[in-house]
Amino acid sequence: MAVRVDVEFGAKDAFKAVKRGDLIVVVDVLRCTSSIVSALANGAKAVIPTETLKEAYRLSEQRPDFLLAGERKGHKLRGFDLGNSPLEFVQEAVEGKTVIMTTTSGTHALVRCRRAEHVLVGAFLNAAAVAKKAAEIAQKEKVNVSFVLAGEEDLFSLEDFLCAGAIASEFPIEGVDFSDEALAAVLGFERVKGALSEYVGKSRHAKHLFELGFGRDVEFSCMLNRFEIVPVYVDGKVTLIR
Amino acid sequence: MAVRVDVEFGAKDAFKAVKRGDLIVVVDVLRCTSSIVSALANGAKAVIPTETLKEAYRLSEQRPDFLLAGERKGHKLRGFDLGNSPLEFVQEAVEGKTVIMTTTSGTHALVRCRRAEHVLVGAFLNAAAVAKKAAEIAQKEKVNVSFVLAGEEDLFSLEDFLCAGAIASEFPIEGVDFSDEALAAVLGFERVKGALSEYVGKSRHAKHLFELGFGRDVEFSCMLNRFEIVPVYVDGKVTLIR
Repeated sequence: MAVRVDVEFGAKDAFKAVKRGDLIVVVDVLRCTSSIVSALANGAKAVIPTETLKEAYRLSEQRPDFLLAGERKGHKLRGFDLGNSPLEFVQEAVEGKTVIMTTTSGTHALVRCRRAEHVLVGAFLNAAAVAKKAAEIAQKEKVNVSFVLAGEEDLFSLEDFLCAGAIASEFPIEGVDFSDEALAAVLGFERVKGALSEYVGKSRHAKHLFELGFGRDVEFSCMLNRFEIVPVYVDGKVTLIR
Repeated sequence: MAVRVDVEFGAKDAFKAVKRGDLIVVVDVLRCTSSIVSALANGAKAVIPTETLKEAYRLSEQRPDFLLAGERKGHKLRGFDLGNSPLEFVQEAVEGKTVIMTTTSGTHALVRCRRAEHVLVGAFLNAAAVAKKAAEIAQKEKVNVSFVLAGEEDLFSLEDFLCAGAIASEFPIEGVDFSDEALAAVLGFERVKGALSEYVGKSRHAKHLFELGFGRDVEFSCMLNRFEIVPVYVDGKVTLIR
């Protein structure tokens, strides 16, 4: 049977994908999932996403050995070790460490998917690896695949749409059944794949990040298939898939 | 000032575009807006969209000289003169006539936009003409533009998304400010414009129409810029713009 590939354009609709019993790929290219991929690629042991700041501070008090990372309104927070720039999560900073992370949208979206059986973390940085793994699990366990685009709660994000297209276009299985949303995303990605950072740069959120001085994050987050890793969210933690 | 171009992916969000005070382009390629464009291009005097069947029957009783057209579940209805196939609205059938029309999604979407100052009817068939007129009004009256995709109430439709992209990509004004949704639509259209009916044919709704035997409607509705007309919805009627 063909694997169905669908897309929820906003994190508020994550529950639909959970309800369908789909394998979920959470995407928040600017910048949460790009940061998580960077952190794990550079040797972090785990990333623990939290929805609220309060929860992040509380957990950090209990575990002072954990790093505290994230943002509100794009900026690093008081008492935090790291912000939400994928370029901060270098080996020197994160190797062997567990990172508590709270961001405006991406960590919310992850937590909203916590009841799903399979939740992968996708970005341009690991698009092909995530596609391969998602297709493998979907075939083996006979589940469908949904992307949950987390850019902003209630809003469509061009960069996440293009990233879902990047991942979906790498699906190696025959007979994939794309929803209208998934097909639109694949077409969009195919149109811009030769100039990814140029087009992602035209998105609302990228423009906002340019204003805040985070232009290099946009550039870095558009590096297609830089890492061959697949982060998975299980029991409240994101780790590399076994 | 740049004209902002936005897209509401579902008819249920038409109210947002109305609230913003935007010029609205309603798009329901398969098949309502393609049929309206065909009807007016072939000499119909006006099309009166109604939300309910009851309203359509009532109006038809009052005005037996009007034609009654539309569908439910894709099929023409008992006592109706015409269905919802753009190929039915030929000159012999509609010239000089007023057409009462009720469809599952498209006429709903139009009625939902009735409080907007400017409501144009868009399809692939008249994409360039609508773009030119929308841009002209937007510049003159200093309003922004929103596409309302009417394919299905609550669902994203690939064909309407691509059509919004077709129209938006023809906008002749400098300094158009595309929302993420509008930019995604333009990119999708640019990717498929050489093979429009092939890609529209992959959409959920086209597949449904193929099953019902309406394949020729899909083919016809994909004829880009076949007509140079702009239907406008004012005071409950769609007519050619003066």
